[in-house]
Amino acid sequence: MKKTLDYIPKECFTIADAKRGDIGNTSSLYAKAFFNNMDFDAITVAPYMGEDSVTPFLEFRDKWVILLIHTSNKGAEDFQLLESRDGRFLYEEVIHTSQHWATPDQMMYVVGATKADKVRNIRSLAPDHFLLVPGVGAQGGDLDAVSRAGLNAQCGLIVNASRSIIYASSKEDFAMAAKKEALAVQQSMETLLNEMVK
Amino acid sequence: MKKTLDYIPKECFTIADAKRGDIGNTSSLYAKAFFNNMDFDAITVAPYMGEDSVTPFLEFRDKWVILLIHTSNKGAEDFQLLESRDGRFLYEEVIHTSQHWATPDQMMYVVGATKADKVRNIRSLAPDHFLLVPGVGAQGGDLDAVSRAGLNAQCGLIVNASRSIIYASSKEDFAMAAKKEALAVQQSMETLLNEMVK
Repeated sequence: MKKTLDYIPKECFTIADAKRGDIGNTSSLYAKAFFNNMDFDAITVAPYMGEDSVTPFLEFRDKWVILLIHTSNKGAEDFQLLESRDGRFLYEEVIHTSQHWATPDQMMYVVGATKADKVRNIRSLAPDHFLLVPGVGAQGGDLDAVSRAGLNAQCGLIVNASRSIIYASSKEDFAMAAKKEALAVQQSMETLLNEMVK
Repeated sequence: MKKTLDYIPKECFTIADAKRGDIGNTSSLYAKAFFNNMDFDAITVAPYMGEDSVTPFLEFRDKWVILLIHTSNKGAEDFQLLESRDGRFLYEEVIHTSQHWATPDQMMYVVGATKADKVRNIRSLAPDHFLLVPGVGAQGGDLDAVSRAGLNAQCGLIVNASRSIIYASSKEDFAMAAKKEALAVQQSMETLLNEMVK
């Protein structure tokens, strides 16, 4: 992991998509490992264990917690769409409650690109938070639909494609094939941004 | 991690309290790492991402998934006690739904020892599952109350004390101090078992 990080230029924002979340004592040690030892800028955290499993990650200056809200996989429906007595989905409750833990300067939310219909709703509940949107690429998320639903005045979206890029080729042309995939996503985003921000 | 495991006799049941849970592709790789490479017998898994984040861990013979249900920390109240429209807590929904994923021969449930009042309820919803009960020791859980609420005909409880044992002493008497702490928990359990099973 450390070795991989050493290849990444310092000015790149690095996210450990580690989906941690544990009792406070253990979350503190995970936070030290990812933020101090490995010097990641951000880490994804699962909310099931609640506030004291997340707050230890918030005690680091200029570091980000990216909380799982509504994920890109099929199983996201099992519990994240559970409706509470107040008529809110679990993922809405997580947005509601977690806004008491940190400001949008320290916390982002994970919303799968495969849930474009939910992105609009999440954007209305969290107008100022950055949304990390995985699921474009191998998982088949719709970049266009997600951008239209999720962009805000500060952009507010980090769109992530992983497997479509890192597995772009298993041959010697890997560097070129991966570059091509990455540029394709970047250019789609740029076109959309120019179109929507004007 | 591998080095620590090498010190543990083969006949001991080993649990990676890693609280993983990710999209299927990633969960599969975690499962291989913990079950094949490191040869753990079991791993704890967080349920927030639903079925396809958990099932990859179930594809290994003679290995166990231990699913987080109601954890020992204060933040457990934030979402695990959210009441659904059907009048069930989220942790009850997780028990209900996850019983479709695996039998009690492959899956156990994590219930914090600090939630003795909930253990009785969980035992009634999952009469045959083993319950992994952390929180005795440093976290102050009540071994007696938990045992009375959670024992079944096969015992059905794995009680775990971590910090009270591994931090028993920071001096040269560590081995003896840790042994004393471990034996104290073991003897309390044995007394309770003899009392309750007769």
